[in-house]
Amino acid sequence: MKKINTSPISGAQELLPAEQAVFNDLKTKIAGSYKSHGYSEIETPSIERTEILLAKAGGDTEKQIYKLIKTTESADDSTQALRFDHTVPLARYIVEHENNLVFPFKVSQIGTNFRGERAQKGRFREFYQCDVDIIGRDKLPIAYDADVIQTLLDTLKLFGLNTPILARISNRKILSGFLEAYNLNQFTTEILDIIDHAEKVPPEKTKSSLEELQLDQDIINQLLTLIDLNGNRESVIGTLESLGLQNDTFITGIKELDQVLSLLEAAGLKNEITADLKIVRGLDYYTGTVFEFILPEHKYIGSITGGGRYENLTKHFSDHSFPGVGGSIGLSRLFYVLNEAKLLNHTVSTLFDYTIVPISENEFEEAMTVATKLRKNGKTATIVFTDKKLGDKLTYASKIAKNAIVIGENEAKTHSYKAKNFATGETTDLDI
Amino acid sequence: MKKINTSPISGAQELLPAEQAVFNDLKTKIAGSYKSHGYSEIETPSIERTEILLAKAGGDTEKQIYKLIKTTESADDSTQALRFDHTVPLARYIVEHENNLVFPFKVSQIGTNFRGERAQKGRFREFYQCDVDIIGRDKLPIAYDADVIQTLLDTLKLFGLNTPILARISNRKILSGFLEAYNLNQFTTEILDIIDHAEKVPPEKTKSSLEELQLDQDIINQLLTLIDLNGNRESVIGTLESLGLQNDTFITGIKELDQVLSLLEAAGLKNEITADLKIVRGLDYYTGTVFEFILPEHKYIGSITGGGRYENLTKHFSDHSFPGVGGSIGLSRLFYVLNEAKLLNHTVSTLFDYTIVPISENEFEEAMTVATKLRKNGKTATIVFTDKKLGDKLTYASKIAKNAIVIGENEAKTHSYKAKNFATGETTDLDI
Repeated sequence: MKKINTSPISGAQELLPAEQAVFNDLKTKIAGSYKSHGYSEIETPSIERTEILLAKAGGDTEKQIYKLIKTTESADDSTQALRFDHTVPLARYIVEHENNLVFPFKVSQIGTNFRGERAQKGRFREFYQCDVDIIGRDKLPIAYDADVIQTLLDTLKLFGLNTPILARISNRKILSGFLEAYNLNQFTTEILDIIDHAEKVPPEKTKSSLEELQLDQDIINQLLTLIDLNGNRESVIGTLESLGLQNDTFITGIKELDQVLSLLEAAGLKNEITADLKIVRGLDYYTGTVFEFILPEHKYIGSITGGGRYENLTKHFSDHSFPGVGGSIGLSRLFYVLNEAKLLNHTVSTLFDYTIVPISENEFEEAMTVATKLRKNGKTATIVFTDKKLGDKLTYASKIAKNAIVIGENEAKTHSYKAKNFATGETTDLDI
Repeated sequence: MKKINTSPISGAQELLPAEQAVFNDLKTKIAGSYKSHGYSEIETPSIERTEILLAKAGGDTEKQIYKLIKTTESADDSTQALRFDHTVPLARYIVEHENNLVFPFKVSQIGTNFRGERAQKGRFREFYQCDVDIIGRDKLPIAYDADVIQTLLDTLKLFGLNTPILARISNRKILSGFLEAYNLNQFTTEILDIIDHAEKVPPEKTKSSLEELQLDQDIINQLLTLIDLNGNRESVIGTLESLGLQNDTFITGIKELDQVLSLLEAAGLKNEITADLKIVRGLDYYTGTVFEFILPEHKYIGSITGGGRYENLTKHFSDHSFPGVGGSIGLSRLFYVLNEAKLLNHTVSTLFDYTIVPISENEFEEAMTVATKLRKNGKTATIVFTDKKLGDKLTYASKIAKNAIVIGENEAKTHSYKAKNFATGETTDLDI
């Protein structure tokens, strides 16, 4: 009988050992892939001073932030809270350790963030995010944007999903340049917001929302044509250039998008990327390249990763300029939605190599010796010390290991053992 | 110029990439070793309902606990706080998932815990702990205690310290039985406390503290002899048996200690373990085996890991009985003290295998192709896209990688490349 509610807090992911093994395996794959692409891993504390977390934020973030009550012991401290993403702590880290880092700094962060969101499916209050960022000092060439996108795409491919992944890529300068060219800068926020929601509403709704801004009908039509643009590099870049718009921002945006796509093609990813002008990624923050990955055969899942280029990571913390580009795999959410969609065929055996089953206490020491030898040979091994019948011990062994080694009086005397494989039923001599 | 204080919160460990790589390598070694000894890894949320965390605790724990202020979004929740150890969440996990687990359940937890302690050297407010526990349903044979000690000892040996590690092992039943035999149970708390501090004060102080309890002088002398007992199994067990004390708890304690030590000897650890009756590990919680690891050549560092046997992990949460044994490596503190003592000779290269250096933008695509091929061959590779002089690019490359591959017009045309090793200065043809 339970004496107390022992469920984890609502909105938390708590896994059984077999699920945890799959989750951890994906986390390890991500870390390995980030490293193979030349990113150095760092880790910042979960707890930050509130003034750091809220230097830029506001609105929803402030509502969702988990603030901490000062403990009696640490009463001397400033107000503190749990980090809600990896970006703000990274900005603090870069400014704090600037002189000990090498720029461009290719950095990865794998850890949990915290948001007191209303609990809903696949939205967790404590969740893993696996970020990569490249930070330059004063400037950072656009080619690094391709580096981040390639890294995330190569990484997600390691999940072994039996369905394609598509990286939808755009550049915010194209839209900004367009609005500049028509003197529509004052509508930037509203228009970005309309485009950001364009895929969630019927096309007429997007049109009528633009009409509500009382824009010229001709401009609305051009804008609708622009955001409907998607496809391979040649066709999209070709169409954009053919518009003949003489605006520097617009032209830079096209050039940058062209270069990012070309480099990804050179990395052999031509069939996994698409230019798509509907991608804007929210209202502020991103200033150039923006991208979002989807599973085209399972569009209802939505974005499975995203990111983009930002003008200056540290503007709230320092006078120095650190432009950057980054993206994040939201592993907890992704793990949840991939499981729900039955797309994660990835299983990890949680069975150990050997369980050693001493028949009585007299063989415990021999069992310790054998287990130690097996581990020295690189095997995983455990011993059943329970005081049960041999049959019960073997049932337990079969649940936790691939092979059982029974040690009785005779085996303990001769030091020769047989291993029984539970899957095949075969028994073989053990050579250790 | 900084606009704001960007230091991490006081009492937090924040590492530069090279230090982080060493820390992460140790963490990976621990996880691998726990697995090789047959433990399944789980992870519980950092945030728990306060009633769970405080079901048993009180005193210092309550003072140090980080409580969370409810967010607007999650205002429906009960009071929540950050976990201060892995043991309480494990108890909740066992009760919650009892029917989906196999017992004895050998489980590991590697993650951060939080305590609002007064900041001091090597004491962190957010710190990694790496726990192993074995939980039985209703009963758990004493041999599992040897399993936990062996696992922790084998694991710490992977740190490659150039100094021996010694596991000091005792059994609380020996002392309890002694006190029972002399009807001194009412002094148990005081006497345990005196023994627990015996190594931190001069011997006369221990004696006078016992005298203050107004115990019989003969008993005081016997007690002092008892707690001074330490050495190898034969000598300590022999001496204990020769006392001829007819008390069941005392006799069980000797038998258990003997078995644990015997099994560890069978695992080849004879020279790394010692029986030591001064080990009690605090006042409550542990009921049988107790252990503490030290570096005998660096005693001032104190305990580097510890643990023991507990009667019932879940007594505050369930009517079922789950006896267990466990121990923990406090990785953040250990990493700190080993570095301070210069004992961690363990270095991990943070250099990537290859940095590709395209001479101009014209070779960027070729660089992407080469990097992709290298990664497919299992190498770590990164590209320098900066718009700098070749010399500057090579300086940067030498800071982040072992080898540089320069790609100019000619290499891009012939697709043949040379790799220059920074350490040796040698240049070799690259075969990809």
